[in-house]
Amino acid sequence: MPTITDGPIRNGVDTATLFATLDAVKGNNEIAKFQFRASNKWVSGTHNRSTIQGFYGAGQEMEHQSVHVFDADHPAVLVGSDNGPTPVEFVLHALAACLTAGIANIAAARKINLTSVESTVEGDIDLLGILGLGGDQVRNGFQGIKVSFKLEGDDADKLRHVVEQSRARSAVYDIVTNGVPVEIEVATA
Amino acid sequence: MPTITDGPIRNGVDTATLFATLDAVKGNNEIAKFQFRASNKWVSGTHNRSTIQGFYGAGQEMEHQSVHVFDADHPAVLVGSDNGPTPVEFVLHALAACLTAGIANIAAARKINLTSVESTVEGDIDLLGILGLGGDQVRNGFQGIKVSFKLEGDDADKLRHVVEQSRARSAVYDIVTNGVPVEIEVATA
Repeated sequence: MPTITDGPIRNGVDTATLFATLDAVKGNNEIAKFQFRASNKWVSGTHNRSTIQGFYGAGQEMEHQSVHVFDADHPAVLVGSDNGPTPVEFVLHALAACLTAGIANIAAARKINLTSVESTVEGDIDLLGILGLGGDQVRNGFQGIKVSFKLEGDDADKLRHVVEQSRARSAVYDIVTNGVPVEIEVATA
Repeated sequence: MPTITDGPIRNGVDTATLFATLDAVKGNNEIAKFQFRASNKWVSGTHNRSTIQGFYGAGQEMEHQSVHVFDADHPAVLVGSDNGPTPVEFVLHALAACLTAGIANIAAARKINLTSVESTVEGDIDLLGILGLGGDQVRNGFQGIKVSFKLEGDDADKLRHVVEQSRARSAVYDIVTNGVPVEIEVATA
């Protein structure tokens, strides 16, 4: 847990660097253009594995310090071997992670101290959709997602406003609620 | 890589169990209602950690064989400590994983052999959005996502149709392209 402080580091966020980054982007909008990437390889059945490392941003090719590797699979009840979470569970993780990072940043920028942020995310899905048994009435994806936050820190009202601002500026919340155009290209050998 | 076979196991998919599962769901639609979950805990700054294990499905509480734990963070260039991928990269992984699992299942059901499925996913994002510097013109999330598949196996035309059917039945593709209602609840202490 980060130390509560009145200095430039608050909630573990270096607010001096955060504000300097905002100024740099204001001075040159081009450096805000990023491309994130994942590459995936099928293992067997519903089991596959993604690798994440390189991305483009701030005008150059960049890399995470480590290569990140994630397995996804279906559980036995969905005819998989349970070598990892299902793909949809990774979406829930991404949503919680994005909102939580935003909460820490926004609270720090507003000089609000946090001592704890926990959340649970629940996504309801009717598998009649992906199984092709639901006709036009049942969608493939989640019918709804519920995120429950529990925050501790400064004034409760301020904390609620921080969550609201995080929602309003969250990349994953926008993706998940508003949708994104996806293009799929196929090469065969 | 799975062994190519004419038996009930194709592409590592147990097609006998797959068809039995479809029949079971046809007989009782209620067992298709699932709820997936993640819980997340803030660590410091933009670093936070999700845990995935329990889910509801087939009329009962279930658990993955293992507890899965994933860290997310921002890289240094985005004022984080790079303890994990960014939340948006997990969305790209989820999309690749879901489409790939579908490809393996659908190919198996159609008696089409696969020998290799690889993909790269690229998501373009203009961070003016999340930084609040883009006015109304720049969204927070990805502006577009491109998935590039490379498949090896039986007849190229059949493989392309498998990808198309996987897209048409993918949970994550539906979530990411069409959006999902998200409810956020906040408790403070």
